[in-house]
Amino acid sequence: MEGTVPDDFELMWGDLRPLGRSASSGGYFRQPFTSPERELVAWFLEQAEARGLRVESDDFGNIVAWWDTGSGPAVLTGSHLDSVLDGGAYDGPLGVVSALAAVDLMRSRGVVPSRPVGVSVFVEEEGSRFGLACLGSRLATGATSWETARELQDRDGVRLGDVVVGGSSSLLADVGTFVELHVEQGRDLVDRGAAIGVASEIWPHGRYRFDFTGSANHAGTTRMEDRQDPMLTYAMTALAANKQARLAGQRATFGRVAVEPNGTNAVPSRVTAWMDARCATDAGLSDLVEAVTRQATDRADRDGTTVEVTAESVSASVAFDSSLAAALAADHEGGDWPVIATQAGHDAGILSAAGIPTAMLFVRNPSGVSHSPAEHAEIADCLVGVSALADTLERLTR
Amino acid sequence: MEGTVPDDFELMWGDLRPLGRSASSGGYFRQPFTSPERELVAWFLEQAEARGLRVESDDFGNIVAWWDTGSGPAVLTGSHLDSVLDGGAYDGPLGVVSALAAVDLMRSRGVVPSRPVGVSVFVEEEGSRFGLACLGSRLATGATSWETARELQDRDGVRLGDVVVGGSSSLLADVGTFVELHVEQGRDLVDRGAAIGVASEIWPHGRYRFDFTGSANHAGTTRMEDRQDPMLTYAMTALAANKQARLAGQRATFGRVAVEPNGTNAVPSRVTAWMDARCATDAGLSDLVEAVTRQATDRADRDGTTVEVTAESVSASVAFDSSLAAALAADHEGGDWPVIATQAGHDAGILSAAGIPTAMLFVRNPSGVSHSPAEHAEIADCLVGVSALADTLERLTR
Repeated sequence: MEGTVPDDFELMWGDLRPLGRSASSGGYFRQPFTSPERELVAWFLEQAEARGLRVESDDFGNIVAWWDTGSGPAVLTGSHLDSVLDGGAYDGPLGVVSALAAVDLMRSRGVVPSRPVGVSVFVEEEGSRFGLACLGSRLATGATSWETARELQDRDGVRLGDVVVGGSSSLLADVGTFVELHVEQGRDLVDRGAAIGVASEIWPHGRYRFDFTGSANHAGTTRMEDRQDPMLTYAMTALAANKQARLAGQRATFGRVAVEPNGTNAVPSRVTAWMDARCATDAGLSDLVEAVTRQATDRADRDGTTVEVTAESVSASVAFDSSLAAALAADHEGGDWPVIATQAGHDAGILSAAGIPTAMLFVRNPSGVSHSPAEHAEIADCLVGVSALADTLERLTR
Repeated sequence: MEGTVPDDFELMWGDLRPLGRSASSGGYFRQPFTSPERELVAWFLEQAEARGLRVESDDFGNIVAWWDTGSGPAVLTGSHLDSVLDGGAYDGPLGVVSALAAVDLMRSRGVVPSRPVGVSVFVEEEGSRFGLACLGSRLATGATSWETARELQDRDGVRLGDVVVGGSSSLLADVGTFVELHVEQGRDLVDRGAAIGVASEIWPHGRYRFDFTGSANHAGTTRMEDRQDPMLTYAMTALAANKQARLAGQRATFGRVAVEPNGTNAVPSRVTAWMDARCATDAGLSDLVEAVTRQATDRADRDGTTVEVTAESVSASVAFDSSLAAALAADHEGGDWPVIATQAGHDAGILSAAGIPTAMLFVRNPSGVSHSPAEHAEIADCLVGVSALADTLERLTR
């Protein structure tokens, strides 16, 4: 890799560190359209202006900062600025900051791209507020219609339609290629001893809401055999999902639960719980959800409760453009970059499914931990990531 | 039973019906020091005034409306006006309304008690806001000190000390006997074909907070075998508690849960859950909690998580004054009233433990359901309850 990365990556990274950070956990709460996330967006607009990039936004809150140079289909790079609840610093922002730093690096190298280069920020990638992951990219590509999305509600009952104007997006109209840089969320690169990798595919994955319904009653006076306690049905289902996924090398997680009335001395009337499930194949995902649903239903029969399962979002397998991945991974000093699969959803998956040739670069994560305050990447690896992204953009705009 | 109950029971009952009622569930949300509960208190003060009763309150919000008649140690009767979250109409208010109606009935019969009679309302009997059941009676008797209680917090972090002045109580100084009428919360009276029963004892019971701690991580990319997921430890503990209690004819319930960060796509870092446990004996309760704790700890070892158990409140067995119970139960037209145990805690238990001779009357509950919008008692049984309470007060003030 030619050239060096200016200090600006570390300066920008330092700018973002305090925004939306919990003093108690050290984790980040950057939910879309809340003030910490809006501060991040304001920061991004300042950075774009400082670089003379032209800002374009759509009716959903997605933003691209354009380096208007060359002609023909544009190359877009970027990620998201929102976080999960109590998340890490890297998931999302690393791709945005690295994209800005890569533009700086290309300019410092005197590169004049033959095509326009855009730095993108998609809103609500994590689905932590309105429940639908990759919301911004789904709306920008038309994968989800505004008519459907506007009715989504956050935990306080606020509708998406009350938060953004909504309408249409032409942000992606002239995009020929999309590249997203992201911190790795596992340890494949650690195992391979590589700082950078290229994505081959995203596992199919989905979010399923389980509504367990029973009968509220007094926790002291109601005999155990007279109860219809949905907590028991839920508890058994959470254990069954874990076992099912573990045996098959898949993933199933119950990380979110809401109980009614949620009183210490009352048998609950209802437990609502969300299962996040991911498998290597679409058929595997269907089988997993079906098996867990069957076990939940059997247990509900025994508990005198009922269970209803609703698929809130299901994303089919995404295979990224394999020739693009191979071309980007090859011919580097120090050897080819490994090409690896991921179980995490990304805006890149949505753009790829919409027919835009798309690639992802991963930056090594020493512990593999993500969606946690403990998420981390070494600064040296982040700087290698910036160089790798600049190199990639140069290849794509020669 | 001599005399008839005037219409005032049904009028009063109708007054209370809409206060704090959820339009969606039909259940009641009458948490202490919130506006629905304050409306109930305002209603009680109006009723006291209309009857010429002298109102006395203490620094904690407990109230007695005195019928200043006769002399010597007073006979107190009453209950509470707060509810569990999404609770029923009867638990608490039935005892207060029946007490007022019993005073009316005694007066309509021309009874002149030889001792003062008080109608009491104790605050926060359910512990639904500050977490400690029988809070008002504990403070009034000194079973819990104000120094301890003032630091209790509700779910929004509001301290009890910020809601009430606190200080001392002399409400019970001249009380010689306490009688609490309450809807039954089981079906013993149904099984015995009786509208009215007298309490023999309250089972020992307690609230135990289980803090399960693990490590937040990405729900998609983290292999099942690399997780420390506290949800699994919790789920197994909830099932174990149920099984343990079921096999021993005891009660154990996990009805309240809080998850962090409670995001769909994150393995939780922490699950906090509260166990309500009740047994026939103090030793049985200790054994139950110990057995559940042991199973939770064993599972935590396997899950790579930790569990910490905190007893937030434990109430030892209460045996009500047996000669008083026998005297109140005997010599009625239609036969003696049955004397039965209850698994539910009551202010009567706190007063009894403080050395005040205490009795409880139960009114038949056809389904046995309580702590639920479906809690019910037939109006005919409620009216029998009023007569029975008036008869009881007459016996005690002859």
